[in-house]
Amino acid sequence: MAMEMVCLDLEGVLVPEVWVNVAETTGIEALRLTTREVADYDELMRHRLRILETHGLKLADLQAVIAAMEPHPGAVECLGWLERHFQVVVLSDTFYDFAAPLMVKLGFPTLFCHELEVADDGRVTGYRLRLDNQKQVAVEAFQRLNLPVFAAGDSYNDTAMLLAADLGVLFRPPQKVAQEFPQLPVTQSFDQLTAIFQEASSRRLPAFEG
Amino acid sequence: MAMEMVCLDLEGVLVPEVWVNVAETTGIEALRLTTREVADYDELMRHRLRILETHGLKLADLQAVIAAMEPHPGAVECLGWLERHFQVVVLSDTFYDFAAPLMVKLGFPTLFCHELEVADDGRVTGYRLRLDNQKQVAVEAFQRLNLPVFAAGDSYNDTAMLLAADLGVLFRPPQKVAQEFPQLPVTQSFDQLTAIFQEASSRRLPAFEG
Repeated sequence: MAMEMVCLDLEGVLVPEVWVNVAETTGIEALRLTTREVADYDELMRHRLRILETHGLKLADLQAVIAAMEPHPGAVECLGWLERHFQVVVLSDTFYDFAAPLMVKLGFPTLFCHELEVADDGRVTGYRLRLDNQKQVAVEAFQRLNLPVFAAGDSYNDTAMLLAADLGVLFRPPQKVAQEFPQLPVTQSFDQLTAIFQEASSRRLPAFEG
Repeated sequence: MAMEMVCLDLEGVLVPEVWVNVAETTGIEALRLTTREVADYDELMRHRLRILETHGLKLADLQAVIAAMEPHPGAVECLGWLERHFQVVVLSDTFYDFAAPLMVKLGFPTLFCHELEVADDGRVTGYRLRLDNQKQVAVEAFQRLNLPVFAAGDSYNDTAMLLAADLGVLFRPPQKVAQEFPQLPVTQSFDQLTAIFQEASSRRLPAFEG
């Protein structure tokens, strides 16, 4: 019997994709690309920063879009169940400045992500990855602390974490990701996700009632 | 500018000492000893388990005492401020079975602690330290994830963590602990603790208003 950690991706699992929302709100289609489509994160971010610069979009503009976003239906309840029965850390390749308004709505779970470089006039000039491959490295760090890890994510930037975890589960992944990683179980709802974690736990847990 | 972690001890910082409460409720004075008085945790736990056995006290008896405990005045508000501005993990040498009722009252912060061995009849037969020196090891693991760590605790079992942290602060420590570790700043209130963290942060944070 052991307490397990749960490591969760943020966008695509608990909340919608931030950049897709920015694309829709601003009408800039080129901002629609995410880690669901592009495997190279640095290439993706450099693409995004160029477009922000071209269109004169500043941090405050992005934050306004993000502040209007809501968690996926059922995400708050699912996270509540997970926090009650596991030790939860959200592992995201977003940035603290972007995530802040969403964290309010999720009740401030512990979050490991990255940092933006912002000029005095509010332009986003760059980003600092806190750590390469941070999701997988964090999972392995928790395991070395003798905490078994269950993990869930939807995208290319989650697969290393999911493969490193004691139990890694895809949550509503794009078909392409699911096909490339057939060894990862696929879940389509918070009911399915919590059921798989409940079943895998060494402890006897009550079912999630979303 | 970097997001910092905050690692907090549980008993003595956020909540009263569990075993002191058990001693007071049961009238068994020998259960009053804590890590505040005894530096060797294994010696302390073996002493406690012997006394529980002698008096026929079971897990459910201890849990009933713990469920009646409340967080220290201001602790919930302080934790709320910390969770809003830092990434918080509670590092405790208690056990998940003991902590559970207190976690409800604290809103389920992420907790790393240890596990009890409980017989089918509910007797506490032993304990499993998840990891030796787990508080210090966890702080060092977070630092390797490029997360600077601020930490607070009150007892002998916190000093290794406090010395390993980027900023380690004693919170209402026994005089003896403060005297033995003069290099660690001493705080006596949540106002003082949050002020020292606010001042040390690389980010500009609003003050805690307890």
